[in-house]
Amino acid sequence: MKKNYKIVIGYDGTRYFGWEHQPDQVTIQGKIEDVLAHLSEAPVEVIGAGRTDAGVHAEGMVAHFPLDVDMNVTELQDYMNHYLPDDIVIKEVREASDRFHARYNAIGKTYRYLCYDGVTKPLFDRKYVWTLEQRLDIARMQEAAQYLIGEHDFGSFCKNPQKKKSTVRTVDRIEITRISSRMEQDDTRDYIALTFHGNGFLRNMVRILTGTLVGVGLGEIEPERVKEILEAKNREIAGVTAPARGLCLMSVDYM
Amino acid sequence: MKKNYKIVIGYDGTRYFGWEHQPDQVTIQGKIEDVLAHLSEAPVEVIGAGRTDAGVHAEGMVAHFPLDVDMNVTELQDYMNHYLPDDIVIKEVREASDRFHARYNAIGKTYRYLCYDGVTKPLFDRKYVWTLEQRLDIARMQEAAQYLIGEHDFGSFCKNPQKKKSTVRTVDRIEITRISSRMEQDDTRDYIALTFHGNGFLRNMVRILTGTLVGVGLGEIEPERVKEILEAKNREIAGVTAPARGLCLMSVDYM
Repeated sequence: MKKNYKIVIGYDGTRYFGWEHQPDQVTIQGKIEDVLAHLSEAPVEVIGAGRTDAGVHAEGMVAHFPLDVDMNVTELQDYMNHYLPDDIVIKEVREASDRFHARYNAIGKTYRYLCYDGVTKPLFDRKYVWTLEQRLDIARMQEAAQYLIGEHDFGSFCKNPQKKKSTVRTVDRIEITRISSRMEQDDTRDYIALTFHGNGFLRNMVRILTGTLVGVGLGEIEPERVKEILEAKNREIAGVTAPARGLCLMSVDYM
Repeated sequence: MKKNYKIVIGYDGTRYFGWEHQPDQVTIQGKIEDVLAHLSEAPVEVIGAGRTDAGVHAEGMVAHFPLDVDMNVTELQDYMNHYLPDDIVIKEVREASDRFHARYNAIGKTYRYLCYDGVTKPLFDRKYVWTLEQRLDIARMQEAAQYLIGEHDFGSFCKNPQKKKSTVRTVDRIEITRISSRMEQDDTRDYIALTFHGNGFLRNMVRILTGTLVGVGLGEIEPERVKEILEAKNREIAGVTAPARGLCLMSVDYM
């Protein structure tokens, strides 16, 4: 009999065309489905909590799938990790209720965006950060972020919004802090982590929010201007879309 | 007129055949010499503080070279970083005395070896750690490390020692500590850093020391056995050679 499984997935998105199936493209969803199809000798559909763009990473993507297999959850996790490539890791496997749906039941998500503004190029983290040529003013960014907290129409921070779909979302937390690297020897706090928590995010929303806040940190955009950008509901006047490589889906919340 | 420059270099050794020139191989020394030769329109010899094996990383390799160029040290550093690939970073450039020699003047080196013994595979750090299937007993490793401190003949921890060359070295510090990952969300302390400081290291010495200490941590070798291994001066009875990917040259000391 088929059971419904909930899994937590980490991946280095560098060499993938995003989470979701694409014809003739290598995707994370596709890789996981291939492994499960091989195990069960039948196609398996894996439903993720959401999509991530090409090049975006995850530490806590959640997905569910039905499967009839003679293994306990630890064996299933070991099997998947054995056959998946090194850059996709199954961190947890649990049996879930038949009604559990990774996308419909998600009530919140946490994303982290990593910037780097040190004097020399980053080395071991170079594929996971947006490297900036100039020092960021964190206090200005924190000030600007306050305008974004709460329930708003985030139309200015969405790529190609669909006409009939709401662009209203609630962002209840944006933290911007300098952190130091563990991999590198020095403790210079040249990394800036922007952590976003909300009930849902539009297409490219975290990357456009980050691009705008970095514009503030570089002195190109005034903090108060962010309020006007939000009210304009116009993608054209917001900042750039930050590169995919700095973004990581950290966790998905369920009831 | 030629000046003598001292540089500090970081590199991700994953795709290199080590530091030193090799015919028909891509090496870090070779990449740096190519950039300097292009700049000065003449061959430049870059002398490193030592060699690192294929796949070994560095955060603080030191080298020197003579150069006659109309640039200050910041411009020279920027030029080199601009033309070097992403996985080699020049962290510092200084004018040095004409007598400064990166290898002959080095009086100490610090290496760090990173192991990982978490439940799931490591993700963002996977190219920089030795992943172990079983939990390491750090206290046992620390006990064993005490036998290695001091001036000893490290012949048991050397690949292909040369008959006429001394295998006596002084290791004055071995620290073994659990650390947590910065890149990953959880704070599980699944990483073990082995930090070695000494006046010099033989070929593969840090990797064989690490392989032996990990053998102790896994319960395969008794801590007291390390004393016998050291006294035997026989590579055959020491532990395995730990993989290159976990090793990083952190810094080189000068007077």
